[in-house]
Amino acid sequence: MYKITDLEGGLSTLDGFYFDSVNVGMRPDASQGDVAFIRSETPCDVAAVFTANRFQAAPLRHYQRYPKGFKTDFLLINAKNANAMTGEAGIDDIDTIFDALKERISITHPIMSSTGVIGYRLPTDRIVSAFDRLDFSARDSDATARAILTTDTFKKEVACEVTVPGGGSFRIAAIAKGAGMIDPAMATMLAFILTDADVPRDEMESLLREGADRSFNRISVDGDTSTNDTALLLTNHASGVYHRDAFREGLRYVMFELAMMILRDGEGSTKVVAFEVKGAASTDDARKAAVALSNSLLVKTALFGEDPNWGRIASTIGSAGIACDEESLRIHYDDALIYAPEQRELDREREEIAYRVMQQDTFTVTCDLGVGKESYTAYGCDLSYDYVKINAEYRT
Amino acid sequence: MYKITDLEGGLSTLDGFYFDSVNVGMRPDASQGDVAFIRSETPCDVAAVFTANRFQAAPLRHYQRYPKGFKTDFLLINAKNANAMTGEAGIDDIDTIFDALKERISITHPIMSSTGVIGYRLPTDRIVSAFDRLDFSARDSDATARAILTTDTFKKEVACEVTVPGGGSFRIAAIAKGAGMIDPAMATMLAFILTDADVPRDEMESLLREGADRSFNRISVDGDTSTNDTALLLTNHASGVYHRDAFREGLRYVMFELAMMILRDGEGSTKVVAFEVKGAASTDDARKAAVALSNSLLVKTALFGEDPNWGRIASTIGSAGIACDEESLRIHYDDALIYAPEQRELDREREEIAYRVMQQDTFTVTCDLGVGKESYTAYGCDLSYDYVKINAEYRT
Repeated sequence: MYKITDLEGGLSTLDGFYFDSVNVGMRPDASQGDVAFIRSETPCDVAAVFTANRFQAAPLRHYQRYPKGFKTDFLLINAKNANAMTGEAGIDDIDTIFDALKERISITHPIMSSTGVIGYRLPTDRIVSAFDRLDFSARDSDATARAILTTDTFKKEVACEVTVPGGGSFRIAAIAKGAGMIDPAMATMLAFILTDADVPRDEMESLLREGADRSFNRISVDGDTSTNDTALLLTNHASGVYHRDAFREGLRYVMFELAMMILRDGEGSTKVVAFEVKGAASTDDARKAAVALSNSLLVKTALFGEDPNWGRIASTIGSAGIACDEESLRIHYDDALIYAPEQRELDREREEIAYRVMQQDTFTVTCDLGVGKESYTAYGCDLSYDYVKINAEYRT
Repeated sequence: MYKITDLEGGLSTLDGFYFDSVNVGMRPDASQGDVAFIRSETPCDVAAVFTANRFQAAPLRHYQRYPKGFKTDFLLINAKNANAMTGEAGIDDIDTIFDALKERISITHPIMSSTGVIGYRLPTDRIVSAFDRLDFSARDSDATARAILTTDTFKKEVACEVTVPGGGSFRIAAIAKGAGMIDPAMATMLAFILTDADVPRDEMESLLREGADRSFNRISVDGDTSTNDTALLLTNHASGVYHRDAFREGLRYVMFELAMMILRDGEGSTKVVAFEVKGAASTDDARKAAVALSNSLLVKTALFGEDPNWGRIASTIGSAGIACDEESLRIHYDDALIYAPEQRELDREREEIAYRVMQQDTFTVTCDLGVGKESYTAYGCDLSYDYVKINAEYRT
């Protein structure tokens, strides 16, 4: 069997990749970068999953103009400016930046990725002039992981080694940024996943998409989907090792860890809650109910208040437009039964048990609809005063 | 032409109806009722619009067990307990209450309506014993309008006289409660609309539904739809006057006024905003976008922060799953142009104008998608610290 081992060091656990960051003045705190790069010694195969938002930002549209199956050796990432709703001019700005970069180093099909405020042109001059201060042979994963953050409060970095059946191993390492606008249909998030696995080009896209469906597409901070959401997978094939199931498992592990970090760092969030809906008539019903729970303002505020108010859970399920019946519904908080048709009112003892579950940083709300066999789990967080504070003051 | 004239006095502007309230201890503040009634001298024709929630509360199911076309002369309303998710026992409780009431006064097909916390049986004994303290010949509209409130901060009462072409008039008067869990698919709201118009029984349901589609179904406080949402229309036909268009217009007026009061009193809300989406490829697209805007946490917090951040408006439209294009989109705040393809970045002057619009208690965000001819307007409010406070502490 294959084995997944955690590694310290983030992106620097992979040979052949370089990363550094610099502050060009978009972020007021000059000690943290706002422009970063990830460079590969050799051209990498690349796959991407982008936002479902119809107003895709300029970097996403720039990427999609490259010929199918292109290889890249350079990612440029910036925070604080999304380069979204900037039209053709926003795409031209990316070309201007890369044209200037090509005068310094050799790069192939460079990719840009941006996050931040919508509707402003990039400060191309400042970005270009900052190239002097970047070390294209540095391997500073920590600074790079920090440079891509916006309202995040901690860096998101994960790395692992996957040992495959019959010997041999490859590594997968990734960084991400998240925080707000996180919805089951992708999110205001960027994720950059590097590997030396010898994964065939034509399998990358479906594996990345499948991984996103089990991670980024199951988390919700506020139900909003941004213009810039991007997950990129790059491989330099350096290990020469590949095993499809092992790679799928490793990729899922890395993406799920990033997703949980994003949720834990959801704007103002104090808890991460898994919403497991089972006994549904269809997977689609289970998914609808789980996603509705993870997005409901009333559920999210009850989680913040640690109020064992299963009525809001039930009400949200009832309004999800799915097959359900109050005579077959059963709700658990972790292992504690909170609602069953034969036991509806929350007596003091069960309320106490429920309250203890809710005081944890993370727990599971399980809703067994009792009308079928399908299930789905979505992940959400609570809604606190700080969410309002962060988002009422975001731009000012 | 017909004429609609505002009247003072709420329900008491209509003859032949009686109303009173009493506190039975469900609401801690004994100076405000928690049980109220509306009684008619003569049996009334009645129509109802109920929640789309699958877990309809006991009072809604009780109503639907009456034979089609029934007449009623009595509504009993309580706050603080929704009698929802209480199963058959919750329906039996209503019968128990009305059986006791029938020993005191003659009533026909009495209807109950409840709002409050989900999952607890009604205190039937306390409700029944409080009947001693109700005056079934009182006409205290004010106390009744207050008794049905939950987290509302002010009573919702409206009355008007409609003069029809060719002379004659009828009246429409109503009370409502709202505050939270308000969604375009009905809401945690109750509305009781009385009239003396001689409206035919078989037109009542469709007129009520049409009125709801233009009022209660267009407002959102938090996107949640409760188990109890109810709008009832009762007529005693006493005026002997009817004119279909005039009645439709009067009903729309009353329901729209109630809807705006509910929104103005949305939990923690400080502003009411109309989201007008036009130039859409279909009415469904326009509706989806307008509703998405009224529900977006990022839009709602930006409204609270008075941040002229049109990026969040655009991003929400882009993720609404509708036909749109950043090259044809135009966004106005009232009359001020905020985004157009030829004018994307918000310069200081336009930002100042936008900020002035946003400082108002109420304004309109207009998004012209520029891809078609259809339009739809939804109404929302901002999301403040107080929303979190009210909902994190609701039950405790």
